[in-house]
Amino acid sequence: MTDSEPIDSGPTDSEPDGAWLAHAVALAIANVADGGGPFGAVLVRDGALLAEGRNRVTRDLDPTAHAEVQAIRAACRAVGDFSLPGAVLYTSCEPCPLCLSAALWARVDRVVFAADRHDAARGGFDDRAFYELFETPRESWHIAIESLRPPDATAPFDAWLDHGDRTHY
Amino acid sequence: MTDSEPIDSGPTDSEPDGAWLAHAVALAIANVADGGGPFGAVLVRDGALLAEGRNRVTRDLDPTAHAEVQAIRAACRAVGDFSLPGAVLYTSCEPCPLCLSAALWARVDRVVFAADRHDAARGGFDDRAFYELFETPRESWHIAIESLRPPDATAPFDAWLDHGDRTHY
Repeated sequence: MTDSEPIDSGPTDSEPDGAWLAHAVALAIANVADGGGPFGAVLVRDGALLAEGRNRVTRDLDPTAHAEVQAIRAACRAVGDFSLPGAVLYTSCEPCPLCLSAALWARVDRVVFAADRHDAARGGFDDRAFYELFETPRESWHIAIESLRPPDATAPFDAWLDHGDRTHY
Repeated sequence: MTDSEPIDSGPTDSEPDGAWLAHAVALAIANVADGGGPFGAVLVRDGALLAEGRNRVTRDLDPTAHAEVQAIRAACRAVGDFSLPGAVLYTSCEPCPLCLSAALWARVDRVVFAADRHDAARGGFDDRAFYELFETPRESWHIAIESLRPPDATAPFDAWLDHGDRTHY
């Protein structure tokens, strides 16, 4: 099954948020049985399912294959656009900084989640730890983030601004 | 050319940081000429190039296809692992929150960048705006981030913790 194929027909309009969120939670539970991480997400627009996503980090050997990222990628493929205005991202767990950033870049309207970063920490995941890191000066991080500004540092942006038919996102 | 094919033989050991960073900047400039965004990145471990990445957001219709994310995905494919300890990520521009989070999840050792979020803003990109958003209470965001905690919110993590052969990441 690909990430863009629904596992059932999806909820009705009568209780949209709760039903779509239950769909994401069901995906997360099913993904554990399937050998994946305990995370699921769906993208919905105008009451219709655009795409589903399951955590595929260990199966696909891709540390960015979080459920929300997978759902965003699949939805963009499905609609043929790199932007998803008007869409709602339902996710079984509070999006980590990676997934929250992906939602911002995808220009979705809303994110609705079930469990939170503290539940994820209980499961052994670093979502909460990385949020805490973002609130801490980089100098104190375990990973070194270094600026090394060569003379041509802005050359790519100069080339970009000089380029005639650039596509903005 | 795929993201994992180098454009040249790469720098020597004599000036590793500056030379690898120049390689990332060259990728960014080349990517603009190729119709992509002005961002390039390379992943290096033990003095050897693991993978390159170019921004492919508009070309691949993937809002998560930032240069750093592309390089991380390609490097993981190249080494057959979802984790890159000991690797250094060189990037033409300060990683946005998406890419910084991807670097954290990929467990790289260092990130070295050339231009910064302010240069990106001059190019019309939201890296700085999203960093500012992360420092602002969510209630004030233009995108709604909503917790809706159903009774079975933690069921995926319960299933995960009960699962015998889970792979931690």
